[in-house]
Amino acid sequence: MECPPPVDETDLVLLGHGAGGRLSAELLDDLLLPALSGTGGPGRRAVPLEDAAVLPATGAAELLASTDCFVASPLFFPGGDIGSLAVHGSVNDVAMMGGRPTALAVALILEEGLPLKILDRVARSVGTAARDAGVAVVTGDTQVVNRGAADQMFITTTAFGTRLPGMRTSAAYAQPGDTVLLSGPIGLHGTAVLSTREVHGFESEIASDTRPLHHLVRAMGAAGGAAVHVLRDPSRGGLATSLNEIARDSAVSVEIEEAAIPVPEAVATACDLLGLDVLQVANAGCLVAFVAAPQAEAVLAAMRATPGGEAAVAIGRVRDWPAGQVTMVAVRHVVEMPTGEQFPRIC
Amino acid sequence: MECPPPVDETDLVLLGHGAGGRLSAELLDDLLLPALSGTGGPGRRAVPLEDAAVLPATGAAELLASTDCFVASPLFFPGGDIGSLAVHGSVNDVAMMGGRPTALAVALILEEGLPLKILDRVARSVGTAARDAGVAVVTGDTQVVNRGAADQMFITTTAFGTRLPGMRTSAAYAQPGDTVLLSGPIGLHGTAVLSTREVHGFESEIASDTRPLHHLVRAMGAAGGAAVHVLRDPSRGGLATSLNEIARDSAVSVEIEEAAIPVPEAVATACDLLGLDVLQVANAGCLVAFVAAPQAEAVLAAMRATPGGEAAVAIGRVRDWPAGQVTMVAVRHVVEMPTGEQFPRIC
Repeated sequence: MECPPPVDETDLVLLGHGAGGRLSAELLDDLLLPALSGTGGPGRRAVPLEDAAVLPATGAAELLASTDCFVASPLFFPGGDIGSLAVHGSVNDVAMMGGRPTALAVALILEEGLPLKILDRVARSVGTAARDAGVAVVTGDTQVVNRGAADQMFITTTAFGTRLPGMRTSAAYAQPGDTVLLSGPIGLHGTAVLSTREVHGFESEIASDTRPLHHLVRAMGAAGGAAVHVLRDPSRGGLATSLNEIARDSAVSVEIEEAAIPVPEAVATACDLLGLDVLQVANAGCLVAFVAAPQAEAVLAAMRATPGGEAAVAIGRVRDWPAGQVTMVAVRHVVEMPTGEQFPRIC
Repeated sequence: MECPPPVDETDLVLLGHGAGGRLSAELLDDLLLPALSGTGGPGRRAVPLEDAAVLPATGAAELLASTDCFVASPLFFPGGDIGSLAVHGSVNDVAMMGGRPTALAVALILEEGLPLKILDRVARSVGTAARDAGVAVVTGDTQVVNRGAADQMFITTTAFGTRLPGMRTSAAYAQPGDTVLLSGPIGLHGTAVLSTREVHGFESEIASDTRPLHHLVRAMGAAGGAAVHVLRDPSRGGLATSLNEIARDSAVSVEIEEAAIPVPEAVATACDLLGLDVLQVANAGCLVAFVAAPQAEAVLAAMRATPGGEAAVAIGRVRDWPAGQVTMVAVRHVVEMPTGEQFPRIC
């Protein structure tokens, strides 16, 4: 057994990095700010860091905010990492309110001893994902806890945005007759993360679907406007949780068709292997929408014409009874008109 | 040695409480929402929980946001707990920008096995502190990590607010000639927390100064308006860090008088015992202000007339040289006019 290379303490996160003093300032100047801003090397900050950020002006638009904790284990997984996941997760929560995300706050809780290389890699991923999504990282905070008091790093992101004109979505706005649309295949994120854990360790080509969804939402709004009643990204708890929340909050019945739900074969295999219900597996880059039936075709077409929505499908519809319940039609036989005489005539 | 009472698993935070499904919903309905809202017992949520919150309209005012991680150990300390500390910390960061805090997002990272009683107590403290500060908890998130992957609980709060008319504070706005004001005694929070840790375990009557400071800021703004150049709450890193940040960002020299800085006797004793520099000890309920000299007296009088500012004092002034440096005058002798003839006359 070979000895590990000696560890240089200057390459690790220290408690002092969170103490607010000189080490904190150096971590900001030399690593976090360059990584988040994508400017590369260390350098002095251009502007003073204030206690709070001034957010972009919203004009007459409604202002939205969403906060989320991310505790990914492992930090890196096929298709993404905790950094891109945190950006996309918060951006998508604003998008699900019919919003255009504009700014992001990033709060880091770091475990003492975390290699600075890992922090740098995650911070760069946050910066890249934020720029790709068109949101600015406007403020943040960093805390360091004792070795063993956290699992490497946790990220809490808060996204800000404005409501798109003409959109007003809510989990309470589903109506009987609505068509249920799904933007793409489910189960990718959860199974991709699980595939990397040693305890499971199955071979797979599955990559997380983590991506921002606000461009898709904008296209849907342009096509359907107020006919888009509900938007949800089925992340933790999966599609089953999102549909149940909507059924409950809207007091409607949701009926979905098992055969219509796109489940990649590798995901289905992984779920079989792990004993998981794919409907309960976390996603990170798809959304479910409830759209008034007359506009559903146009919204579906707009989704398919937008990156991230190419595989969009209709998966169900809304009934008025039994309120609060989600049912899945697993097997459906076509019931045909009788072609001729049946049993002995009784009438 | 007596056996501990048997632990009922239903009294503990479980991994499932963060999974987004039924247990998550129950935790929200039965504990978090009643505790945060102060309505007491469990009950159904009144409105659906959306992915994002709509923030209060700001009109023409600038919108401010600040995010902070809180990792207090222990969770409860004389004068407060991690819940009230998190609310005050974020509210104060908005206040330091000359802002009126209006809303709060609360993100919880919980360790599996945390007693629900402790979570309830902290959540109630968040709710009470928020109501007392006049801010609404508008959105949040809860994650549960494996036992040992976090130290009981971490809170990340994000505060939103609007800039008060006529105020425009920044760490970069200190000017030569400014008077440095301090709203009250320093060192209370840090030494109160340390006094509760077993490893130190000294007897003391010290209580944290954790409190919201936005009422104080409003009074200062009314008295001094734009003459209030800089506001900072010297939390992590203490007064030394805040003054150095201001000296650097404003490119000025800050000179403070040791004798003018209020340090409670118990705090001084604790700092001696622990070998701490009181200037570097964290505070949670005082602020330092840089005010144009002509308005400094009026601002100081307004502070003294406002709860939380009764003990406000002037502690120093701003020079133009040496830029970026903070100096403390430890001993000052009055230099008198010579009363008569000195040495042998040389001129």
